[in-house]
Formats: sequence, structure tokens, C-alpha cells
Amino acid sequence: MRIIIVTCLFLKAISSCQASGTDIALDAKATLLHRIDSLNLLIYTCLLTLTVLTIWVFKHRRVSWLHETGLAVIYGLIVGAIIRYGGSTNQITHIDVHPAPDTKYNLSVPPDVLRFHFPDKIQISSGDIPIPNKTYAYSFRGEIVNIEQNEIDLKATFDPEIFFNIILPPIIFHAGYCLKRKYFFRNLGAILTFAMVGTALSAFVIGALMYGCVQLMPASLAASFTFLDTLYFGALISPTDPLTVLAIFSQLKVDVNLYAMIFGESVLNDAVALVLSGAIQNYEKRYSNDGGFEITAFLGAIGDFIGIFSLSLIVGALMGCLTALMTKFTHVREWPLLESALFVLMSYAAFLIAEVCELTGVVAVLFCGICQAHYTYNNLSSDSRNRTKQLFELLNFLAENFIFTYIGVSMFTFPKHHFDPWFIVAGFITSTLGRAVNIYPLSFLLNLGRKPPIPMNFQHMLFFSGLRGAMSFALAIRNTVSEARQAMLTTTSLIVIATVVLQGGAATHALAYLRIPTGQGQNDENEALPYRDVRSLYQATDSSQPTGRMVVKWENGEKQVTMPWQLDYFDERAGGDHVSGEKARLARLWGAVDSRLLKPLLTHARPPLTETLPAFMSPLARLLTTTHQYTQGDSNLRRTDSDSDLCIDEPQPVPTSIDPQLSINVRNGYGHV
Amino acid sequence: MRIIIVTCLFLKAISSCQASGTDIALDAKATLLHRIDSLNLLIYTCLLTLTVLTIWVFKHRRVSWLHETGLAVIYGLIVGAIIRYGGSTNQITHIDVHPAPDTKYNLSVPPDVLRFHFPDKIQISSGDIPIPNKTYAYSFRGEIVNIEQNEIDLKATFDPEIFFNIILPPIIFHAGYCLKRKYFFRNLGAILTFAMVGTALSAFVIGALMYGCVQLMPASLAASFTFLDTLYFGALISPTDPLTVLAIFSQLKVDVNLYAMIFGESVLNDAVALVLSGAIQNYEKRYSNDGGFEITAFLGAIGDFIGIFSLSLIVGALMGCLTALMTKFTHVREWPLLESALFVLMSYAAFLIAEVCELTGVVAVLFCGICQAHYTYNNLSSDSRNRTKQLFELLNFLAENFIFTYIGVSMFTFPKHHFDPWFIVAGFITSTLGRAVNIYPLSFLLNLGRKPPIPMNFQHMLFFSGLRGAMSFALAIRNTVSEARQAMLTTTSLIVIATVVLQGGAATHALAYLRIPTGQGQNDENEALPYRDVRSLYQATDSSQPTGRMVVKWENGEKQVTMPWQLDYFDERAGGDHVSGEKARLARLWGAVDSRLLKPLLTHARPPLTETLPAFMSPLARLLTTTHQYTQGDSNLRRTDSDSDLCIDEPQPVPTSIDPQLSINVRNGYGHV
Repeated sequence: MRIIIVTCLFLKAISSCQASGTDIALDAKATLLHRIDSLNLLIYTCLLTLTVLTIWVFKHRRVSWLHETGLAVIYGLIVGAIIRYGGSTNQITHIDVHPAPDTKYNLSVPPDVLRFHFPDKIQISSGDIPIPNKTYAYSFRGEIVNIEQNEIDLKATFDPEIFFNIILPPIIFHAGYCLKRKYFFRNLGAILTFAMVGTALSAFVIGALMYGCVQLMPASLAASFTFLDTLYFGALISPTDPLTVLAIFSQLKVDVNLYAMIFGESVLNDAVALVLSGAIQNYEKRYSNDGGFEITAFLGAIGDFIGIFSLSLIVGALMGCLTALMTKFTHVREWPLLESALFVLMSYAAFLIAEVCELTGVVAVLFCGICQAHYTYNNLSSDSRNRTKQLFELLNFLAENFIFTYIGVSMFTFPKHHFDPWFIVAGFITSTLGRAVNIYPLSFLLNLGRKPPIPMNFQHMLFFSGLRGAMSFALAIRNTVSEARQAMLTTTSLIVIATVVLQGGAATHALAYLRIPTGQGQNDENEALPYRDVRSLYQATDSSQPTGRMVVKWENGEKQVTMPWQLDYFDERAGGDHVSGEKARLARLWGAVDSRLLKPLLTHARPPLTETLPAFMSPLARLLTTTHQYTQGDSNLRRTDSDSDLCIDEPQPVPTSIDPQLSINVRNGYGHV
Repeated sequence: MRIIIVTCLFLKAISSCQASGTDIALDAKATLLHRIDSLNLLIYTCLLTLTVLTIWVFKHRRVSWLHETGLAVIYGLIVGAIIRYGGSTNQITHIDVHPAPDTKYNLSVPPDVLRFHFPDKIQISSGDIPIPNKTYAYSFRGEIVNIEQNEIDLKATFDPEIFFNIILPPIIFHAGYCLKRKYFFRNLGAILTFAMVGTALSAFVIGALMYGCVQLMPASLAASFTFLDTLYFGALISPTDPLTVLAIFSQLKVDVNLYAMIFGESVLNDAVALVLSGAIQNYEKRYSNDGGFEITAFLGAIGDFIGIFSLSLIVGALMGCLTALMTKFTHVREWPLLESALFVLMSYAAFLIAEVCELTGVVAVLFCGICQAHYTYNNLSSDSRNRTKQLFELLNFLAENFIFTYIGVSMFTFPKHHFDPWFIVAGFITSTLGRAVNIYPLSFLLNLGRKPPIPMNFQHMLFFSGLRGAMSFALAIRNTVSEARQAMLTTTSLIVIATVVLQGGAATHALAYLRIPTGQGQNDENEALPYRDVRSLYQATDSSQPTGRMVVKWENGEKQVTMPWQLDYFDERAGGDHVSGEKARLARLWGAVDSRLLKPLLTHARPPLTETLPAFMSPLARLLTTTHQYTQGDSNLRRTDSDSDLCIDEPQPVPTSIDPQLSINVRNGYGHV
């Protein structure tokens, strides 16, 4: 309704811009462009509002067959179709130009700016309208691939860079900030395997299969795809985005380990896919105009991948630690507004630094988020904890729904779609196969060394949770110069829409069909999870395994309660092989560094550095320990206090000066996890 | 420090982009541009971080001679100078072009896109680097005024539109959302007079004086300014932005009425100046190339002003009321995240709708904020109240500090500055005179009909609080095509910097010098203000007036406690003349409509519509009254409950199902205001 009114106003605006005089006409044109921009934003704002209201109705009526992201996509599709077939077209005027005769220019790159004297030699029969005699600047925009294609449309499209610089960072940061680290660390092996090995495997399988499919297709199509193109497609379609599934899990209180695996994998495989696609593009850029395969270039791409991923990780982690130090050693917490601002600025700086250094900002901001949650969060005032959590929750909600709305709208309005039925069908089939290759063989391998193994119904659910989402779309829309890339964008959009709407809608039924128990554990990120409920459903459902072992650990007392490396160690002693022993040793090492060096250094956690560092470093240790750290609890609480990462998800943050009674509750297992 | 490192990386980036092949070179160029964008953002992020940390140090050490905005400006100036004189220059390459011989084009406006075949007829001696043979698109950018001026700089500058569409809306919305409405309404007459009449008067006086000054200056300068130019300057330099002063007031707990007057005036005069400058530009656009004065055009401009202002106000207020209805009649409050998202989206939609309709979005978003605070806020869940307040507080903080940092940086990096000593000196003198004309004569007139009058020291403080800020700068940077406009930008920037740093720094001393009492009342927006402290300092300091009258009202009991129209009515009966009687009648009417129709309709406030509407409308009234409204309090609380706007500034929101004990406290005068 509102959109129709707005469209009328918009048409009126176009008709009313026939003013006299070029300057006034130019002004009017600038105003019109500004209004079209505002109108585009308004359309999305209204769509989001509509989505919010419908989500409310669905939640109110307990509708589960369509999730909010599905809704956003569907509303987007409807409005996209209306804009496409209902609105008027703004044709862009253009002319061909040649350089002035005596031009001095000596670069292989086209110039940044053209200076054009209007009207120059053009004959204009404009009646009594005065024609200006001025020079205008034109700035470089890009290559024109198809000279016939005249229509560059202004309708409801955005610069794809906006996705990478504005929309994705808060989503990814929020994912890192909310990661339930205990379960994440406990399933770290599986998560890393699925995310790292699995995504790469899936990308190669999809790339190879697509290349095969493309060769079987009509020759015109086959010619336009190189192997690298299909590999790029494999990389961009591999990351999963199981928002919908996770929301349902959260609602139905599905097993925490399954939740952690799906969430952890989807967070990391976004980062992996982004770096992987960058490496493929670099490979392409450096070596191949023939789409062939060179071993050195391939190794270079692998080096790229590892280097960029780890450097980005380091940048993000360092910024997180720097924020922790700032909040620990200053009293900025006395002014929560300043503290929150500092937190937001430092987190965004992590993204920007990585981008400036030609690394991947998204990876940096993810690991920055994880570090902020692990260290900085403990130093924040309770006001800032609330504020940052709520802020990123809201930003994440808006950004996510915006991106899904945009996927819907752009299906009709983005000018660079290329519908190719063969490619689309092949894309659907191979992306499903790629997901299968990601899950089943790797689960089999993991189960060889993993106690308890991942049961079959969990594997099916992992397979089923392979929805595609924001990252795939953002990667696909980034580059649409060639026909091959445009076909990829169309296919990706369709896969995203189909998986989000259909698979997302069927998730509840899938859970029931696969007999995955629900409703017993609590796994909502925002809900309290008391210790006594921690006894994992995962094990309860896996009847082939003796379940007593971990339960004993949980009920055994404080020493063995929570450290993930302790769990691994326990597993290893009980029945681990060499691989898990190796892993456990690494995890133990990391755990020791974390609890003895990093946590005491970066947060107010006990024990202080003065106790954990060797004696000869004690002057330094005293310097780095705050009085707050010395005085914060009585002596018998020292060891348990360092588990403060367990407190991250509580709804009411624990006061910083810990109430002894409360701490004892935590130690005894009645606190919040 | 970090900036130096980043600058090194940046230089490395430039040197490393000498790749072979045009496509790769273009890709590298795009990457470089992306990195320069990121670098610019990073510079501002680091500057803001630095500002936050320094503010903390200043607050910690209780430094009062420099405020955060002053700090932001100074840091901006320093970094701007470093960028200007320390960095390397990115020269933009450019060539002149002519249209192709057989071009068909028949508009008086230059085309949107030029298509340029590269290398065309240019002789390039590029050695072995392959030269492409492709067509590129160039999009329209703007007029080139000075052909010699080759340097379009990429350094740390932003599109001015960003200020109007991204930075200003949250600042203005926050101002509206935080307006202490009780004191605002109580001083409405003075605020409206200063903001409406005063700003227009100030604009005309400054415009006229500047025109006179310009005529006395060297002929070259005089020729480039028309009267409309100087009038535009008057309009853009008239709005005040006393952030610094208000922060100090808030800290020192200065009289609430003085606070309300300064805050209210500065909020409204931003809106007035924006619409006024728009009207002047429209006038300019329509009628004058000679800068002359035509009576019909002048009346048209006044019509423009009134029409645009009131329509924008209506758009904003309607969106606010619509949000109130949505939050009242749905149960969206059960999902605070959805509710907060709805709130944010509707508020931004108000801005966008106004912009799409060629109204002033800033005015719409201001009045939307006021309505959201007055109505919607009462319907929100306590989680959403906190979240929206904290969100906008943070956004406002970041946006404000960003804008002041940008003012500092752009002083050196913005390419379109024009330093003209005469104009700058004249600008400083006339803007001071304009502020004086705004305050003293109008205070004199107001005091004729106002009981109690505005004392002389308050008038001096109002005059002293005339700092210039974000709105002046944003208006000045919006249009820099001509030399006159560039001189205005430079002068405005300097006035903003000088007033913020010097006047802001001296505010504490000014308060002491003017003997304005501090520390007794509480006027911090976020602090609780118990009823018993409400007895205004304003009256206590004004010894010429009998102070008993209003105090009696405060201690009199519930019937006369809070309604602003009741206060006015009381004033009028006691000693008002015809003007204030007129005003009081209007205020009374509005108060009746508000408490009998709007509040019961839009919020859960008592009394419900079923009691306030005439009997024949009772079916409609029943439809529009929620069960919550019927059941929310016992009968003797009815009348006081409708004062729920008093609760807006409490730190802990009152639970929506009002605890009887708490409500009684409110009624007895011990609750939070």
C-alpha cells in the first residue's frame, strides 16, 4: 500500500523534472537521484517492517513451517516482481566519446576522469531552453561488456561492496561474540574438520562436477566456463548459513552439541569460503587466461589461503586482546557509554585493518568477536555487556533480514542475471552432493578417532542443515562481469531461496523424522543453562556408548568440571588413540596458556599473573596485575574463578565484584553457564 | 603511531600496483580504491578511539577546560595536517574527450554515461604491456569549475550526502527522543520564539550585515557574492549546537529551565535553519540569476518554509503515532528484539518518507523522536526501552564525535576550501552579532508577557551558548561549487572550531562569572529527578518575583501537579495578559486532546477512551481500548497514570504492569521523574 503511494510520488517526481535551464535541470536530476536512493532504502525499510510484523504474527500463532529469513525472501520476491513489472524505467542517457586530438596520456589503464565539454559539437534542437557551455567531469565506472545492453538500471540495487563492508561485519562479529565457547571447544575437532577440510573438499567436488556438467551442455555454454570458474562456484556455494535451522533448534531446545557443531561449522566455513574464493581469484589473476592448471600456481594459491587466513586471524585476535587490555588497565568502565563506544570502534577497526592490509576483514572480525567474548567481555561493566550484546543482536537481526530481503528483490531487479536452466539444475544437484561429501565421509573418518562418535541421525541433520545464505550470495554478486559469473549469481540466488524457504520450513519435520530428541536441554544462546542439565543429550541418545564416563566428570567436583582440554585429556586416557592424544596435548597446552597467561593478563580473572608466572618475572607480573584482581574473591575461589567464560551467556551479568554466595553457587554447579 | 604504520602499508600498496596487463591493473586499481576507502574509515575509527580514550582520561582527572567535541576537533586538525603535508598524493589521471562524430543526443542536460573506447586514438608507448581494446563506461560526476585545478583528492573526504542521510538522523532523533518534555513544554513559548523567530531574524541580520561587509571588500570578492549567498550563509550559521555547554550543565546540575531552553532551542533551530536554507535555495533556483529581490518569490519562499516545515512535522508525528499504535495493538512486546527492530525501522522510515516526498527528513525524524518518546515509549517492554535508549545514545555519541573529527580533518584535506581573511573576520563578527540579536531583543519582548521573566544572567548564558556545530557544517559542505560557497565553508568550519574549542572550554568559567547557581537541581537526562527537588532554581534565583506560587502548586496534591497547560493556566490567572492567555488556551486545548484522546488511543495510559469519548462513540472507543488499559491500575490512580511521560527519564523503567505501591509513590511525589 505504502509502496504504491510512494511509487506515485516517484512518478510525479520524474514528470516534474522537466525544468528549464541546464543547471536547474542538473539540480533536479541530482534531487531525483537522491530521492530514488531514499526510495530504494524506504522500500527495504518497509519490507523489513513488514517482515518484523509477520514474524510477530507467526510467533504469536506458533507457525513453524516458515521462518523469518524465508519470509524476508518471499516478501522480497513479491516486491521485486512489482518493481520489475509495475514501475517505470529510468533510462540512462549515454553517448560515445573520443579523446581530444592532442591528448597526452601514457598509461595502460584507462584514465580515471574524462572531461567533457557540453554541448561541444552535438547539435541540440532544444527550442528556447538555454544550452550551457560548461565542462563536466565523468568518473570511471567499469567495462561495458555488452555494447547493445543499454539499460543500467537504478531500481532497488546496491553496490555489492556494501555487503562486504557494512552488512557482513556485524553479522559475523555477532556470530563470534555469541559462540557458545564451551561446546564449541568440546567439538572443536569435528567443527574444524567440517569447516576447513569439508568446505575445501566440497568446493573441489562441486567445482569438478560442475565442470563435467558444463562440458556436457551446449557448446556455447561450455565455452564460457573455465575450470577455475566452476571452482569459484564451488567455493562460493559451499558455505552454509543455517540461521533458520538454528532458530528452530533454539526454540525446540535441541542437543547442545549438535547445535554447537552446526553453528560452529557455519561460522567458520563462511570465513574459509571467503578466503578460498579469494585465493582462487588470485590464482586466476596471476596465471591463467586459459583456465589451465599449474602446479606452482596451485601451491601459491594454497599458500595464499593459509597465509591470508592466519594473518587475518592474528589481526582479529590481536585487536580483541588490545581491547581487553584497554578495558582492564583503564577505568573506562566507570563511563559505560565510552566503554561501549571503545568496544565497537576497536571491533570495527579489526575489520578495517585487515582490509587495508589486503587480508580478509570478515575473518578478522570473526576472531575479534571470539576474543572479545572470551576476554574483553569479562572486563566490561554490566551496562556495557548488555548494551554491546543488545546492539549486535539488533544489528545482526536487521542486517540478516535485509540481506535476505535483498536476495528476493534482486532476483527481479538486479540487471545482471543470466538464467541458464542447465546450469541451474546442475548447480542444485552438485551443491547437494557437495554437502553430502562434506558430511558423511568426514563423519566416518572423525568417528574413527572420536569418542563418542557422531550418530547417524546427527549426520543426516548436519547434511540437512546445509542451507545456503548471505555469504554465498555476497560472493556471487561481487563480480558479475562475464556471462559465466552472471549465471553463477542466478543459480546461487535460486539455491539460496530454495534452501531457505523449503529446507528451512521443513526443519521441524526433519528433526521429528530423524528422531532427534528435543525439549530437554536448553541451548538458547540467551538462556541460562544450569550445570545439572549439562549432561549431554548427545550421549543419552547414543545408546551404543557407555554414557557414565562424562557424567561422572560432571558430578565429580570442581577440579575436572569444565576445561575442554581436561575433557579431552580424560577421553584420551580412557580410550584415545594417538591422534586424539596429539589433539588433547595441543588443547591442554592451549588451555594452560589461556588460563595461566592470557586470562590473568587480559582480564581480572584469578589466579593473577603473580601466581602463575615464574618467580624471576614477578616484577613484570606485579605490574600487569590490577588491585581488583588481588582483591576480588577469597582464596578458596581462586581456581574456579578463571572459568568466567562460562558466565558469558547469562541474562543478568554477574556483578564484577563477585558476591561470595553467588560464586559458591557457581562452584557447586547451580550457577549459570 | 598506528596511523604511521598504516600509512606505510598504504604507500607500499601504491608502489605494488604496477602490474602488467590492463585488466589486472584495473583490478589492482579497484583494490587500491577499496583499500583507500578502508584506510579513510580506519583513520576516523582510530581518531574516535583516541578521542574516547582521551575523554576517559579527562573525565578521570576532572579536566573541564576542554570538552569531548573540542578534543575531537583538535585531534582531527592534527591528523588532517599530517595527512595533508605528510602523505603522498594520488593524482587523478584525466583526459579531455569529444563526442563521436555521428552522435544523436537531444537533451539540454549532459548525458549520464560516456562510453569511451580505450585506447582509441591515443598513442601509448607502454613497451611490452598489452594494451586493451575495450569500451569503458564513465558516469556523470559534476561540473568542473576551475579547469586548471587538476587535483581531485581521494584523501579522507566523504560525500557530503553522507552527513544528511547517515550521520544527522540518529543525532536528531536522539535529541527528540531525549527531550525533557516537561521542562520543554513549560518553556515552549520562549523556545519557539528563540528557535523560529530568533533563527530567522539572526539569518536575515547576518545575511544583511555580511552583504554590507562584502560590498566594502575588494571588488573581486564583492562580485562573487549575491545577497542570496550571504543570506544563505546567515541561515547556515544561525543554528546552534551547544553540546559542550549542555554536557557541562548536566555535569554541574544547572537549573533545569535554562537547560531546557538551550536544549530545546538548539534542537528546533537546526530544523528551522535546514528548512530556511532550503527555501532560500529554492528561491535562488526559481527566480534569480541576478541575486535581486522579488516580492512574489519571497512570499513563495516563506510559503515553502512553512509548508515544508509543517508537512515534515506531520510526516514525523504520524510515523511516531503509527509506531505507537503498532506497539499498542500487537503483542510484539513479547519479543523485545522484534519490537526494537520495529521501532528503529519505523523511525528511519519517517526520515526516508520525508526525503522521498521532497520534505526535510531531519525535521520529520525530530518530531518522530518526540512522538516516540511521548507515546510509543510507554508501550515498549522494559528491554526495548533500555535497548532503544542505549542504542541511540551510542549512535549519537559516535555520530557526533565523528562529525567533529571530520570538521577537523577536512579543514586540511577537503579540496574545496577557499581562505578569504576578510570574509572570515566578517563571518566571526556577524555571527556573534546575529546571536545577540537572536537573544536580547527577543528576551526583552518575551519578558513583557512572561512570568517569571528570563533574568539577565540567563540571557547572557543563552548568548554564550551559541556554539555552532554539526548542522552548520553539514549545510556548508553540501554545496561547494562556487568560490563564494567555498569561502562560506571555510568560514563556517573556522567558526565551528573556534566556538567549540574556545567557548566550550570557557563554559564552566562563564557559569561562575554569570553567577548561575549550580549543583542543586538535577538536570542530567539520565538521572532520576524526584518530585521534591522540582522546585525550580530558576525561580529561586529570580528574587524580583514572589516564588511561592509555583511551589504551592508542587506541594498541592495530585490534581495540579504536572500538566504544562495547567501551569500556564495558573500563570495566566495569576497575572497573564492577553497573549499568554491566548497561548494558555491553545496549550490547554492541546493538553486536553493529548490526555483525553491521543494518550488513551496510542498508549496504555488511563483514563481509557471509553471514559473520555462521548457516549455515541463508545463502540469505537471499546474497540480501541485494550484489556491491559482497563485492568492496569485501581480506580484512584486513573488521573495520575496519564502522566506517564514523567517516567521517561528514569534509569530503571517502571514495569508495564504497574505495581500499586510504586504508583502510589509516584503519586505521593517520591517516584522518579
